[in-house]
Amino acid sequence: MKTLIKNGTVVNATGVGAADVLIDGETIAAVLAPGSTLLGFDIERNVDTVVDAAGKYVIPGGIDAHTHMEMPFGGTFASDTFETGTRAAAWGGTTSIVDFVVQYPEQNILDQYHAWHEKAAGNCAIDYGFHQILSDVQDASLTAMDELIAEGVTSFKLFMAYKGVFLSDDGQILRAFQKGASNGALMMMHAENGAMIDVLVRQAIEAGNTSPYYHGLTRPWQAEEEATHRAIMIADLTGAPLYVVHVSAKQAVEQIAAARDRGLNVFGETCPQYLYLSLEEQLGAPGFEGAKWVCSTPLRARSEGHQHHMWQSLRTNDIQMVSTDHCPFCMKGQKELGIGDFSKIPNGIGSVEHRMDLMYQGVVDGQISLSRWVELTSTTPARMFGLYGRKGVIQPGADGDVVVYDPAGHTSIGLGKTHHMNMDYSAWEGYEIDGHVDTVISRGKVIVDSGQYLGAKGDGRYIKRGLSQYLI
Amino acid sequence: MKTLIKNGTVVNATGVGAADVLIDGETIAAVLAPGSTLLGFDIERNVDTVVDAAGKYVIPGGIDAHTHMEMPFGGTFASDTFETGTRAAAWGGTTSIVDFVVQYPEQNILDQYHAWHEKAAGNCAIDYGFHQILSDVQDASLTAMDELIAEGVTSFKLFMAYKGVFLSDDGQILRAFQKGASNGALMMMHAENGAMIDVLVRQAIEAGNTSPYYHGLTRPWQAEEEATHRAIMIADLTGAPLYVVHVSAKQAVEQIAAARDRGLNVFGETCPQYLYLSLEEQLGAPGFEGAKWVCSTPLRARSEGHQHHMWQSLRTNDIQMVSTDHCPFCMKGQKELGIGDFSKIPNGIGSVEHRMDLMYQGVVDGQISLSRWVELTSTTPARMFGLYGRKGVIQPGADGDVVVYDPAGHTSIGLGKTHHMNMDYSAWEGYEIDGHVDTVISRGKVIVDSGQYLGAKGDGRYIKRGLSQYLI
Amino acid sequence: MKTLIKNGTVVNATGVGAADVLIDGETIAAVLAPGSTLLGFDIERNVDTVVDAAGKYVIPGGIDAHTHMEMPFGGTFASDTFETGTRAAAWGGTTSIVDFVVQYPEQNILDQYHAWHEKAAGNCAIDYGFHQILSDVQDASLTAMDELIAEGVTSFKLFMAYKGVFLSDDGQILRAFQKGASNGALMMMHAENGAMIDVLVRQAIEAGNTSPYYHGLTRPWQAEEEATHRAIMIADLTGAPLYVVHVSAKQAVEQIAAARDRGLNVFGETCPQYLYLSLEEQLGAPGFEGAKWVCSTPLRARSEGHQHHMWQSLRTNDIQMVSTDHCPFCMKGQKELGIGDFSKIPNGIGSVEHRMDLMYQGVVDGQISLSRWVELTSTTPARMFGLYGRKGVIQPGADGDVVVYDPAGHTSIGLGKTHHMNMDYSAWEGYEIDGHVDTVISRGKVIVDSGQYLGAKGDGRYIKRGLSQYLI
Amino acid sequence: MKTLIKNGTVVNATGVGAADVLIDGETIAAVLAPGSTLLGFDIERNVDTVVDAAGKYVIPGGIDAHTHMEMPFGGTFASDTFETGTRAAAWGGTTSIVDFVVQYPEQNILDQYHAWHEKAAGNCAIDYGFHQILSDVQDASLTAMDELIAEGVTSFKLFMAYKGVFLSDDGQILRAFQKGASNGALMMMHAENGAMIDVLVRQAIEAGNTSPYYHGLTRPWQAEEEATHRAIMIADLTGAPLYVVHVSAKQAVEQIAAARDRGLNVFGETCPQYLYLSLEEQLGAPGFEGAKWVCSTPLRARSEGHQHHMWQSLRTNDIQMVSTDHCPFCMKGQKELGIGDFSKIPNGIGSVEHRMDLMYQGVVDGQISLSRWVELTSTTPARMFGLYGRKGVIQPGADGDVVVYDPAGHTSIGLGKTHHMNMDYSAWEGYEIDGHVDTVISRGKVIVDSGQYLGAKGDGRYIKRGLSQYLI
Repeated sequence: MKTLIKNGTVVNATGVGAADVLIDGETIAAVLAPGSTLLGFDIERNVDTVVDAAGKYVIPGGIDAHTHMEMPFGGTFASDTFETGTRAAAWGGTTSIVDFVVQYPEQNILDQYHAWHEKAAGNCAIDYGFHQILSDVQDASLTAMDELIAEGVTSFKLFMAYKGVFLSDDGQILRAFQKGASNGALMMMHAENGAMIDVLVRQAIEAGNTSPYYHGLTRPWQAEEEATHRAIMIADLTGAPLYVVHVSAKQAVEQIAAARDRGLNVFGETCPQYLYLSLEEQLGAPGFEGAKWVCSTPLRARSEGHQHHMWQSLRTNDIQMVSTDHCPFCMKGQKELGIGDFSKIPNGIGSVEHRMDLMYQGVVDGQISLSRWVELTSTTPARMFGLYGRKGVIQPGADGDVVVYDPAGHTSIGLGKTHHMNMDYSAWEGYEIDGHVDTVISRGKVIVDSGQYLGAKGDGRYIKRGLSQYLI
Repeated sequence: MKTLIKNGTVVNATGVGAADVLIDGETIAAVLAPGSTLLGFDIERNVDTVVDAAGKYVIPGGIDAHTHMEMPFGGTFASDTFETGTRAAAWGGTTSIVDFVVQYPEQNILDQYHAWHEKAAGNCAIDYGFHQILSDVQDASLTAMDELIAEGVTSFKLFMAYKGVFLSDDGQILRAFQKGASNGALMMMHAENGAMIDVLVRQAIEAGNTSPYYHGLTRPWQAEEEATHRAIMIADLTGAPLYVVHVSAKQAVEQIAAARDRGLNVFGETCPQYLYLSLEEQLGAPGFEGAKWVCSTPLRARSEGHQHHMWQSLRTNDIQMVSTDHCPFCMKGQKELGIGDFSKIPNGIGSVEHRMDLMYQGVVDGQISLSRWVELTSTTPARMFGLYGRKGVIQPGADGDVVVYDPAGHTSIGLGKTHHMNMDYSAWEGYEIDGHVDTVISRGKVIVDSGQYLGAKGDGRYIKRGLSQYLI
Repeated sequence: MKTLIKNGTVVNATGVGAADVLIDGETIAAVLAPGSTLLGFDIERNVDTVVDAAGKYVIPGGIDAHTHMEMPFGGTFASDTFETGTRAAAWGGTTSIVDFVVQYPEQNILDQYHAWHEKAAGNCAIDYGFHQILSDVQDASLTAMDELIAEGVTSFKLFMAYKGVFLSDDGQILRAFQKGASNGALMMMHAENGAMIDVLVRQAIEAGNTSPYYHGLTRPWQAEEEATHRAIMIADLTGAPLYVVHVSAKQAVEQIAAARDRGLNVFGETCPQYLYLSLEEQLGAPGFEGAKWVCSTPLRARSEGHQHHMWQSLRTNDIQMVSTDHCPFCMKGQKELGIGDFSKIPNGIGSVEHRMDLMYQGVVDGQISLSRWVELTSTTPARMFGLYGRKGVIQPGADGDVVVYDPAGHTSIGLGKTHHMNMDYSAWEGYEIDGHVDTVISRGKVIVDSGQYLGAKGDGRYIKRGLSQYLI
Repeated sequence: MKTLIKNGTVVNATGVGAADVLIDGETIAAVLAPGSTLLGFDIERNVDTVVDAAGKYVIPGGIDAHTHMEMPFGGTFASDTFETGTRAAAWGGTTSIVDFVVQYPEQNILDQYHAWHEKAAGNCAIDYGFHQILSDVQDASLTAMDELIAEGVTSFKLFMAYKGVFLSDDGQILRAFQKGASNGALMMMHAENGAMIDVLVRQAIEAGNTSPYYHGLTRPWQAEEEATHRAIMIADLTGAPLYVVHVSAKQAVEQIAAARDRGLNVFGETCPQYLYLSLEEQLGAPGFEGAKWVCSTPLRARSEGHQHHMWQSLRTNDIQMVSTDHCPFCMKGQKELGIGDFSKIPNGIGSVEHRMDLMYQGVVDGQISLSRWVELTSTTPARMFGLYGRKGVIQPGADGDVVVYDPAGHTSIGLGKTHHMNMDYSAWEGYEIDGHVDTVISRGKVIVDSGQYLGAKGDGRYIKRGLSQYLI
């Protein structure tokens, strides 16, 4: 299959330019000056498909580096399977995900890695890679890190919260980071002080403060700032590169910025929910409604300026990328588990379908530039997680993962509208986007076009990732 | 003229990949997956020239955004003309310069702009643009800023030192910055507190401390840090974007970093001399020898860690680009004016030829990555000064400004070796570089190849620049 | 005259304790455990006067280190003479002032010093010292600094604003600071960037923005922060101790705090107006009313948090003392000069009478502790300006400057109430204080008691000050 | 007993002045202007003892707020009993200690409190108070805090290191701090990340790095900085005042300084060993010699500037006081336990006798002022720990705890010289002090004079302390 995308405006991370893009088979064969010819050779006549992108942006497909498809958590499972979740992602212009293999204590991480392959293989609409969660740091796990790197799993996530489930103590974190410093793995961290939070949660429940709003109040910014700083210190001591997931508090951002100013390889990811939603408005919705937005780290108080500061940090590159932490649960039968006790509400929000749109709205609103949009959602994820060259850029040799985005289009988010995720509500109900994902091409195959899904289950393949290409 | 550069490794600011580059006429026509064919069409047979870049880097031509060719200063002129200086630049892999039009008090800046055109037109080996120096900020100058922007001069430099020659007072700076905030111009600043320095210089001379070393001691870091902070505050107040030239003190870097953390459009440039050379070693050389390295801001004390911190700031993007501040003077008849009084030594170092090599050595030494090398020397200069798309990137539609750099080559810097600048000494005598500029192409024409200069006087054209593309 | 103050609670800067205080002649003879006897010797019987301070605080008399009595400025004079101003001060519990001798350009500072002595001699109700303003820094002025130090004038004030009147350029400041570093003088600074302000003022007037409110808008915090930082850098370079007067912007406080964290002898003074009053409420009063509060630095926006931050800085010792910058002008005939042009309004507020009360209200409001009240208003001023031992503390050997303050009393500020200053309005009209100055003793003489003024013109004497006792 | 100390220079925290001091019974009856008379009453004739302090400093007796007499640790006991330790303290001019009651897990803190009373009662040479260590934070312990406050134990120490012995997890710390925020207790913290350290220690031992030097390397500054910041965040969240003990790393100081700049009640104590001794010189001594200086936090590398920065922090008040952490162990039979495994060396250094001298040497060396010497060693400890008024100041009503210190005297520290502690070596062997403790008076009784110990076992009494008087 040969496809020519002509007349479009190619947006890469460093800038914007008019160019045609030729995909031959699964990869980009050439990026050409507009005109559909090369030295007199008529390209348009020699391809199978021509996509006219006049007036539209041609961007590298989105990479969502933080998803939890079918994740087992709190006695239930995240409601999107690899099949439903990746298809929804494709609808939204995302052509790769990196999902988390879960290790619970006493589990063997290689077994888990293989189990995750079984879940995903043959089911995905788009390409997928894996991070590995480490919940049981001991000699066997550390040795297995090397094997996983050879398998293309080059990033490992630890938790400073969720005692008995995910939490590693500081000694375990230190050992894992020492390993990361020696084998080049990127260490990812859920940075919240679980021990503090557990006390606050217990006190809130005992005091009868059981509504979803208290989920936010019992995970104060101090717990996030503290853990972020602690992880940075362990990174400083060991020399490991550190990637802090789902940063929401401005004080945590400040810790990351300070570490970066000192020249450390410390990075931060945020999510659309921390840019748009808030403690007061969403978590504080009447009744049990707030449960829709129970996730951790929690939504932060708008009155404290976190959202404002987070947009700024995207501009200043103190935060380097935007993922979704896609971990959807239905209200019915799932979120409802926490009626009368917010601590039993499954933690998670589903956004994998809407990330590209929500971040494009940031361009429209003047928060970020066009190039920064691509950098935050595709180029930096690719560089951060060892995919660059194949993913994250429109250049020859790269996979033919291309999205044609129409700035004159419009997208209405919500159930019965654009929603394709397996959830019985949308966390983004009512959001209106001044742009539209027109065409989505994955490794040369058009999988979404003109409002039609043209792909198939199993289109997506596992991506072996290399070491991070973003380290300084 | 059609040229194919094949088998090379293309280095752009965000990453590295194998690709062929086709230049048709003056611009890049295509970037292609390696193999010299496209959909069966044999490219190699259809071009005039084939450059085999196997094992070599193919990079966008260097952009030196800070040069002073033939600059009148202190009763003499910088010793490189546009002809000699741009040719030396070409030898070193730089295919564009942005030079400074000088306004002295009472001069009309439009007259000066035209005078500079006359000096440069027909003489340059490579493309050239202009910044405008403002030394007389009053209504006419401010009005003329708009006209110059229409002419492609979109950046304006002010001085906080050199009273009676260049210095603007803070009220003048404020007015100019207000103008920049409204018309989009980038405000450039020589940030040293001249009033403090003038006192220290006078005191040193009166005390008989007349050797070149005292040039450094009488321009202490406090004078630079102070002025840098002051310029930032005026930028903060007015909203103008600020670009601080030739930053040398780590404390000035810290001020810039702090401003950037606050989300301001504040940028800093450093020069190779502030990365490699020092107060103790060069300025402190015996006798009058130190005069070779008299420039302002001055070389800083290595014992205080400025050089170490400056390399770090290049990695952390607290400093965004590297120019040369090329302003050469011969020892004979020029630097000698300051024997017995360092304050009479013409200020300047010549480096336009060596910047790409010296910064590549930073890659070899592990200070910066390959992509960062290109970003610092070409991509960011292009974005910063409104050239991106035409310059600063290997992509179709861009000017065919391409350098083939051989990491297996070697370059010995110094008189009688690589030196082509019009100077009777080299500030870099004895520096050995683990790499080599093999081929230099300027707008599609091979001007340097295999140790031969193939270009001609007048190859270079004036570049109308747009507004900065680097603002957040 | 022998006076025993018995049964009171003595408040010193480090703490509070029950004690009797015996004043013999002009000095404190002893501080004794309560009981009025010593080793069986009955003190009460052997004194002339007994003040019963049961339930009251016994504190060292206030020291207002920043006043401008009869100051010539803008064609008029501050409306309080040394006679009226010091008497008002006495009423309010202040027993010493340090006033500013003015040097205008071309004036000889020793002449000015003597002229100020003539104004004050025989007229003051309380003791007085002098600072010297330097508006013409040249060799003669610098030499005269040494002579003035011998005369007990050990602090010298420079201005970074008021061009042509007070302003010194940075070279002059540098020279003066070098002198201060060598002779131990404390360098005081009016830190506002006058060049920036002059442009903003002219632009405002030209735009028809002539009301008092624009006095605040044309002196933005950036102008204060910038100048504060600049003064700190010159202090850093020279080693001179620096005292920044009338700090009002939180960003200036942050600069001072940062310098102090680095171990520099940098100090800051604020005034009651910057703690209680604001841009919006006072300067923004309807019509010309705001003129009452035109002073420089200006009142700051409460919405930006300056007042809140300033109280905090008093607790953290980032700001070390509170003076008044007492410089009163009447509305009639003085402030009125600026109707239609705020830049012609004489700058100044009168507070010398109310400082002790206003700061005590901070104790009542929980902003500062009792000891900190005394430290801010008396002990630190004494230490800062070389008076400690004689002033600023209740201890034997110290001057008998003592105030009995009643926390159960009440003070209503305003015309027709407590007002004794020579002004036709009160900047503090309507302020109610939960405390009262009951008795004021100056060098052993009761000058205020039970609402009666018992002192006389000429009670106050000139105080030769030593070098600062606050340097680290 | 009535004692007059005449002709001396009284040094208090805010300043210095000539004064006589009269002690009547156990308390200071009066501080008087020099001359030994009051209103004609001849004091000298009416007292029992006259101490002539001409040429000498009269200071409040030292308060060492961090001692561990007879502390059970690691299977042995600190070698000084309350008898030997307090007598040594007296020799060195310290007239009060605050010692730590130990709670190990499962112990009842009230039982422990009473046990400590039994150890100390009747044995002490000087007055003593208690802090309470909390190693088992649960409901009973928290309730007991209130009872202990009523008993005069108003400060509670937690540990972030020593797992299974002292360590509290962050949830326990949070609960204890919540209690402190509500009852006014001062929360003290041993701030080192024990989990990190435990891993590093195990790795060092496994690698055969068993010498005392590795005690330092396995407790890196990151572990201290991290824990300090974490404690600050918990203090920030709860509102509890925080006192960090034995701060040694400059980065920990910076965290404390930053917290204080934000207005938090966060305090830091350092010890003489962190000012004078270093990792390289002492811990790195040949063979097992370094064991003499094994304490935690450890001595820091002089090459990293910690000692230099710590002296600065004493001047800037970023660190507020100096205690000893007196916890002596003999080499023979105690320190020797760690031959072949540094982790078995009992942690501690003995300095209670030398603190006043070592800090006075800081005055001689120009590091701190005379007043700051008294503030750091007596006044602030008194204010910090609720003793001010009775202790920490020369003022009437205060306990007659007075030291006459001779700046013309000399003290040679070491075994066979001034050493009175129960240790078989001195950590300070060979230190020479340019001053001498001449006379020590404890509650009116002369206990040391002219090189004679005149006191008796049991002179010292338990001091019920109030809440901290240092909070802002």
